[in-house]
Amino acid sequence: MAERLVIFDTTLRDGEQSPGASMTREEKIRVARQLEKMRVDVIEAGFAAASPGDFDAIHAIAETIRESTVCSLARASEKDIERAGEAIAPAERKRIHTFIATSPIHMEKKLRMTPDEVVEQAVKSIGWARQYTDDVEFSAEDAGRSELDFLCRIFEAVIKAGATTLNVPDTVGYNLPQQFSETIRQLLLRVPNADQVIWSVHCHNDLGLAVANSLSAVLAGARQVECTINGLGERAGNAALEEIVMTVRTRPDIFAVDTAIDATQIVPASRLVSQITGYPVQPNKAIVGANAFAHESGIHQDGVLKHRETYEIMRAEDVGWKQNKLVLGKHSGRNAFKSRLSELGIVLASEEALNAAFARFKELADKKHEIFDEDLQALVSDETVTPAAEHYKLNYSQVSSETGETPHAKVTLSVGGQEQEAEASGSGPVDAAFKAIEHVAASGAKLLLYSVNAITTGTDAQGEVTVRLSKAERVVNGQGADTDIVIASAKAYINALNKLHSSQGRVNPQKGEV
Amino acid sequence: MAERLVIFDTTLRDGEQSPGASMTREEKIRVARQLEKMRVDVIEAGFAAASPGDFDAIHAIAETIRESTVCSLARASEKDIERAGEAIAPAERKRIHTFIATSPIHMEKKLRMTPDEVVEQAVKSIGWARQYTDDVEFSAEDAGRSELDFLCRIFEAVIKAGATTLNVPDTVGYNLPQQFSETIRQLLLRVPNADQVIWSVHCHNDLGLAVANSLSAVLAGARQVECTINGLGERAGNAALEEIVMTVRTRPDIFAVDTAIDATQIVPASRLVSQITGYPVQPNKAIVGANAFAHESGIHQDGVLKHRETYEIMRAEDVGWKQNKLVLGKHSGRNAFKSRLSELGIVLASEEALNAAFARFKELADKKHEIFDEDLQALVSDETVTPAAEHYKLNYSQVSSETGETPHAKVTLSVGGQEQEAEASGSGPVDAAFKAIEHVAASGAKLLLYSVNAITTGTDAQGEVTVRLSKAERVVNGQGADTDIVIASAKAYINALNKLHSSQGRVNPQKGEV
Repeated sequence: MAERLVIFDTTLRDGEQSPGASMTREEKIRVARQLEKMRVDVIEAGFAAASPGDFDAIHAIAETIRESTVCSLARASEKDIERAGEAIAPAERKRIHTFIATSPIHMEKKLRMTPDEVVEQAVKSIGWARQYTDDVEFSAEDAGRSELDFLCRIFEAVIKAGATTLNVPDTVGYNLPQQFSETIRQLLLRVPNADQVIWSVHCHNDLGLAVANSLSAVLAGARQVECTINGLGERAGNAALEEIVMTVRTRPDIFAVDTAIDATQIVPASRLVSQITGYPVQPNKAIVGANAFAHESGIHQDGVLKHRETYEIMRAEDVGWKQNKLVLGKHSGRNAFKSRLSELGIVLASEEALNAAFARFKELADKKHEIFDEDLQALVSDETVTPAAEHYKLNYSQVSSETGETPHAKVTLSVGGQEQEAEASGSGPVDAAFKAIEHVAASGAKLLLYSVNAITTGTDAQGEVTVRLSKAERVVNGQGADTDIVIASAKAYINALNKLHSSQGRVNPQKGEV
Repeated sequence: MAERLVIFDTTLRDGEQSPGASMTREEKIRVARQLEKMRVDVIEAGFAAASPGDFDAIHAIAETIRESTVCSLARASEKDIERAGEAIAPAERKRIHTFIATSPIHMEKKLRMTPDEVVEQAVKSIGWARQYTDDVEFSAEDAGRSELDFLCRIFEAVIKAGATTLNVPDTVGYNLPQQFSETIRQLLLRVPNADQVIWSVHCHNDLGLAVANSLSAVLAGARQVECTINGLGERAGNAALEEIVMTVRTRPDIFAVDTAIDATQIVPASRLVSQITGYPVQPNKAIVGANAFAHESGIHQDGVLKHRETYEIMRAEDVGWKQNKLVLGKHSGRNAFKSRLSELGIVLASEEALNAAFARFKELADKKHEIFDEDLQALVSDETVTPAAEHYKLNYSQVSSETGETPHAKVTLSVGGQEQEAEASGSGPVDAAFKAIEHVAASGAKLLLYSVNAITTGTDAQGEVTVRLSKAERVVNGQGADTDIVIASAKAYINALNKLHSSQGRVNPQKGEV
């Protein structure tokens, strides 16, 4: 039987560090549920000491998730580790992941510590962490540029101190497969007690090599890969979970390992993360891109596909691609709606939230003949289903646009319960609507990004709009979905304003630099 | 000095085979010019025998490009090679790239030929190709699943017959770096006359490993990489040119080779290809994604960036990222406009086209305060600058959208010179506008994709809309840009209708399966 390759998903920690990808507590719980459903071994739920919001989200996930291990990142300090331990306390299976930099440049310029001090601090940290759980991971930050002798020394020390997983990150995405594989091989060879722990890798994609580097490490003996859905993560992102999982599974002749992942949950997970973060997946992305299996999409193939396997190394349905199914329509009732949501893994917080979502569903069904799973996902990702958090609400909007005339918008918002009206002109109806909303809200936020995704095909498809706003060092994404692109845009803008207004977002988040 | 690594760009051939990515002759010439400016060694301009449109585009590129080698793909048949030879005839430097399948499954199921027949056909093809040029490339299709002994045999034979570049494609994206590297090493070792030719690789990205596989082959002795801008290509695409070039350049300690590429042209090339094909680049794409250098984008960094090199392995400006520059405004004249276009490498076909573009520029400057390079690119990528091709034209549109009311649109189109009006309701203003246009055009086309990109930031940004339509096996992308998203959408729809109407598009394109 193939050995287990542990899948450590860090979408909720490293992935969330992408600009504007911050998720609310509820969004994080939804992603965590999907990761558990996909049978991810370890969910890195956040960085507890970074902010009270991060702490709360990890704690809530620890209360919710039963199958996967719930993990918090922590710097190698007593206070960080204490926060991490408290955050994961309710979990069935829990891990603390502590890190310290080991490369000369980081130790000197960032930590301002000697190598001896770094080893001492690391060893102490493992002891602190073991007070909360027996499952302790240690990362040597910027291992890719660290000296091998020093890595061997610190790893040997932390194993003795009780670390159970050792992670070798390529923090700046500088390594090449052959070389990274050799690093892992050397570590396994030279660290005397190497066989007592699971070796892990965490690769960044700056040169497009995160997946290849991770896999080369697996061939050298690593048995945990840290990765994210859609390869989300800082800069060019992390190794993509879907590519790691499917390469290992497609090539059992090369890999003596397999993961526990239910691959049919990959595409739903990809869509969920993309919807929540507002980060689109490009069509030519491996596995989860819209074109990844385009030879099956009905595009003319000139008759060369005499046998299916001629051009196919895996099947679209194995990774969760399926035909859009007409799941619900105008006449579907509240129970059918609720049960389909639950099949999609969506649990709404309260009866009130369910009622709000159902009302929105009925409204949508009036405008759109066929309601697909994607429409339902969009429906509930709209913040309006958690009415408590809403400071601003769109009550009415009217826009007009005519060739040769200046586009104009009227909006009525409820602000903290009080109705306010405004009008504005703009360079387009969306611009006009945003300006009218700003007249009321006067947030002074800066628009960083505006993007639209059609959720389903056909001219009556819902558009899902993402609006990224920044204000005083905070960056938030707002989402809105509607068959009317102007209304979807206005909703997204207001959703972003609500996030800026709430205290849930993190101000100056501390980042984990692993 | 580092040995030359030949960069063979196949954006215009393999990239164009992505669903809906077909480009017009003019678009292909614009991309080819940019590739030449970037100092690509070989431009694979198309597959001459595939269609008259492909033939024309290759011929036009052969007439235009002076520095790069212009190449056409051809199956291993006399007729295909003749067409390729004629298409590239005007080029200063020219190459024919011929291919035949060498894997057991392809030879048996697709070609229905014995191995002996395949070798004979390949050798003959090289002879035919050498009648047109001394620069002949041979590809063993599906080499990744071919038997090594047979590969050695056919490669030895085609070298004797006069092939100068031998390409080893991983057609289905099934290989892993270590293994692919070993294949190349074995070929170089076992093919007796291997040192007489340049060895090339062509990798597909189905498992996310196209770049890693290509680079592993370079380490084993390959000296040409076939790649595309943004990794465009069938399914999950090809190896991304930008990742290949920047990895080799960032790691001179590992690679004994370098390319001739002017890396500062990478981001402009990425944007151009994305705009023309309507294929977006995801933010977390290495090198050319919007976040790839996000640590430089003003996002708060918690003071850890004490030294720049701590988290940076290359500089954004080295690959062509720069601040948006305010290049032109409301009062800029025709000469300033023309000279900026020419700095951007955009050459308009006629004075008439320039006048049309300038009129559109003035119109835009009325609505948008600051005109960036991106705006200019969008302006000219709009088909309206080549008025000859326009069967449908949008003269007037008016839409309204109001909460609780059904969105409604009125449009006036000119159809072959005759003005026609229509009205329609829809689930949103864009849907209503599309339906109104269809009332007039009655194309019966199916909407496959609707996507919006904001070209620049700020609320008065232009939206660039891509509409993908299919009709009777043909798939086309239409683009439209405007500060008004509804008008941009209507333009994109009409642009797609014009492409369906013109005879330029390829019906049932023959694909090169390399």
